[in-house]
Amino acid sequence: MKYSIVNYICGICLVGESIFLLLPLIVSLIYGEGTWYCYLIPAACAFLLGFPLSRRKPKANLSPREGYVCVALSWILFSLVGAVPFVMSGDIPFYVDAVFETVSGFTTTGASILSDVEVLTHSGLFWRSFSHWIGGMGVFVFMVAFLPMLGGSTMDLMKAESPGPTVDRLVPHVKDTARFLYLTYLFITATLAILLLISGLPLFDSLCMTFGSVGTGGFGITNDSCGSLTSVQQSIITVFMILSGINYSAYFLLISKKWKEAFRLDEVRWYLLIIFASVGLITWNTAGIMGGVKNALHHAFFQVASIITTTGYSTLDYEIWPQLSKTILVCLMFIGACAGSTGGGIKVSRFVLLMKSFRKEVGILIHPRLVKVIRMDKTTVKHEVMRSTNVFVSIYVVIFFLSLLVVSLDNHDFTTNFTAIAASLNNIGPGFSLVGPACNYSFFSIPSKIVLILDMLAGRLELFPMLLLFSPSTWRKD
Amino acid sequence: MKYSIVNYICGICLVGESIFLLLPLIVSLIYGEGTWYCYLIPAACAFLLGFPLSRRKPKANLSPREGYVCVALSWILFSLVGAVPFVMSGDIPFYVDAVFETVSGFTTTGASILSDVEVLTHSGLFWRSFSHWIGGMGVFVFMVAFLPMLGGSTMDLMKAESPGPTVDRLVPHVKDTARFLYLTYLFITATLAILLLISGLPLFDSLCMTFGSVGTGGFGITNDSCGSLTSVQQSIITVFMILSGINYSAYFLLISKKWKEAFRLDEVRWYLLIIFASVGLITWNTAGIMGGVKNALHHAFFQVASIITTTGYSTLDYEIWPQLSKTILVCLMFIGACAGSTGGGIKVSRFVLLMKSFRKEVGILIHPRLVKVIRMDKTTVKHEVMRSTNVFVSIYVVIFFLSLLVVSLDNHDFTTNFTAIAASLNNIGPGFSLVGPACNYSFFSIPSKIVLILDMLAGRLELFPMLLLFSPSTWRKD
Repeated sequence: MKYSIVNYICGICLVGESIFLLLPLIVSLIYGEGTWYCYLIPAACAFLLGFPLSRRKPKANLSPREGYVCVALSWILFSLVGAVPFVMSGDIPFYVDAVFETVSGFTTTGASILSDVEVLTHSGLFWRSFSHWIGGMGVFVFMVAFLPMLGGSTMDLMKAESPGPTVDRLVPHVKDTARFLYLTYLFITATLAILLLISGLPLFDSLCMTFGSVGTGGFGITNDSCGSLTSVQQSIITVFMILSGINYSAYFLLISKKWKEAFRLDEVRWYLLIIFASVGLITWNTAGIMGGVKNALHHAFFQVASIITTTGYSTLDYEIWPQLSKTILVCLMFIGACAGSTGGGIKVSRFVLLMKSFRKEVGILIHPRLVKVIRMDKTTVKHEVMRSTNVFVSIYVVIFFLSLLVVSLDNHDFTTNFTAIAASLNNIGPGFSLVGPACNYSFFSIPSKIVLILDMLAGRLELFPMLLLFSPSTWRKD
Repeated sequence: MKYSIVNYICGICLVGESIFLLLPLIVSLIYGEGTWYCYLIPAACAFLLGFPLSRRKPKANLSPREGYVCVALSWILFSLVGAVPFVMSGDIPFYVDAVFETVSGFTTTGASILSDVEVLTHSGLFWRSFSHWIGGMGVFVFMVAFLPMLGGSTMDLMKAESPGPTVDRLVPHVKDTARFLYLTYLFITATLAILLLISGLPLFDSLCMTFGSVGTGGFGITNDSCGSLTSVQQSIITVFMILSGINYSAYFLLISKKWKEAFRLDEVRWYLLIIFASVGLITWNTAGIMGGVKNALHHAFFQVASIITTTGYSTLDYEIWPQLSKTILVCLMFIGACAGSTGGGIKVSRFVLLMKSFRKEVGILIHPRLVKVIRMDKTTVKHEVMRSTNVFVSIYVVIFFLSLLVVSLDNHDFTTNFTAIAASLNNIGPGFSLVGPACNYSFFSIPSKIVLILDMLAGRLELFPMLLLFSPSTWRKD
């Protein structure tokens, strides 16, 4: 492990965060809340610590191992610093709770320990929602795009942070790929914010709801999440949640005017198919209790989009829905959005790959001498990607059950524990029973909160960076 | 698909079942229940249908594909015929329920649709329990061991039926391997039956409880499962459940006096470690409500042995235990027993292999050019076994969630649905909530029962034979 690189990259991260912290500081000044120093002091400390580190550019090149460790460490550091303003301003007085809320923000989970968000300061609300936006596209995509980085495989940094089994270089240069991703992200953000403004939502609300939707986060600024928005506003958010869950490669193809290729992406087609099938089933299943097909369809669309993209907004307490609809939502929690989007979960492409590997396995049982290649988007999927996908799902299951054991020490019911972990590991936010959309996570014990914090980070960084961080062989000398 | 082979093997199965049906017939005559014809008529029909088929020995050799399909079809046929006596004798008047009970018997699940088993006839109780014993070691192991079979890969028949990622040929000839397995099975059965007799249990009860323990089935003959047995009897059953969950290779090594190798088997060591760790945790967790460590330890041992071996007996209603203990039991449900035992579940060896593949994957992330081999019991694990293990877990997860969706249509709570499917797919029997140890499966709708029946079969045959049966390419002409 080359510590000079780790120090350098963590330094850059701290400087980056000190800049991000200026935004809630400005919000605080605008609203005259007197909490501006709660953002200024952490920002100043982060800058003073990070700047000297970021000046010592190491000569060594970045290896994949350092890439993963840097990403994991930076995210932890980012969260630990980001939690400080909440404690200082008194919005969340207890530090572990503040870290939970911040990790939930940066990982775009949206699980909250607050029972009443309407009492928070404007700057606090803004920082909560803005953390979704920072974490949505990723800290390192931003850095690779706009900062001068060191040599070697900066691709590994993006790989470690970006969701999905593979990261495509859309264009030959990594920097250009990162820039394209970030500019598209900015464009989608601006469009949604303007649409919400036009629909009659105040500027502050528009911005916060936009951050939560485009980053697929889910922190709301009212206690009923999206329940008090007009149905037009809810529909706008539905559409943008779905758009944010799409693989950004599709947008690249669209912008490059490769229409055919864009509409032929296996993952995007499956993603939309799953959404429409789920909406259809839930509409049919809930039409009775929702007072008609039209209303059922509206809420089914919103809720399916919110859960499959792992945003976590809600327009109603879906606990009242029949078990089939609730079970569909649980399944969507695990499927998640597309790879290369801002959404979480296991990712549609992994499921598509798994389905294809089942067919291959069955094919081999029938014809043992068969040599079969797995294809996706008309290119052959590499053996390593398949192995890593299979291992991913297995590790996922093991982490899930280990977390379940620790959280069960709190002695809450099985549905609460199961869906709390599903909602954390998949970066969704609300679950069922005690962590349903009308509830919060404050009742968990500190050990459970720490497990859920680690699950949120593991889920956002797709397991491997966090696993590497805790693996002794990572820290062995070369 | 060579239909001549399928017909031939299904024919042999029917003849085999007609012979097995003679035992409950004898029980019926001994107790003078007047239900003897309920066993004679199905036995006669099975014989008349099966015998001509079994005389036409095909010239073609058995291919893996036919092996899997034959096993899947034979198990379905076996269950459909085995359910008839229950309907005729009036023990279970409704045919779908009778099929559920029979499949639950043959697959050694032990899930029952009966709310009161004490009203059943003796012959009915015997047939229920005996079906565990038949299914425990497997129908085809019996056939390969004692019947003249056709040429080609009879190993594939055993592979398709035997639990675990690989089937070892313990001795060069498949027939000898099968014979060794069956004779060991008979020896363990006889030992337990004699011990229970000595402990004071009547002959009929001893036999039925033995079948349920050694086959890791779990059908009891009283409504409180094992609750009314003495604690000595409970302890005897605990030990034999654990013994039945051990890989039979260990017994082969012991008999061959290879002591060192026997005690060095990775899977058996992990299996025992998991048992002792779980018992320790549950004892600590329940000592308070169970009135002391001694009592807690006794019941923890029984329940852990019952669940990890997927037997499903109970000495108390473990629903009263704290959530940690219950969650441990849920985890054990999925882990299951050793490969090559009579137990179900995903199997300890698969988890050991997965853990090793995680380490490999992390190793590759750290050193991308690393070439690492996975070893188990000091031999290299083949690439195909690893791939198939990973695919197995992924298919398992997908089947699990698809079943969950169908069963959720009944609108029962999440814990009921989740644990009912876990208990079916892992061949355990009781779950939690509405399917807890003091409850039964009768309240499910017919579609749900059919899904659970398919899950039990898929679980017992380890997914692939059932998947092949429903795969269109299996039925394509060569």
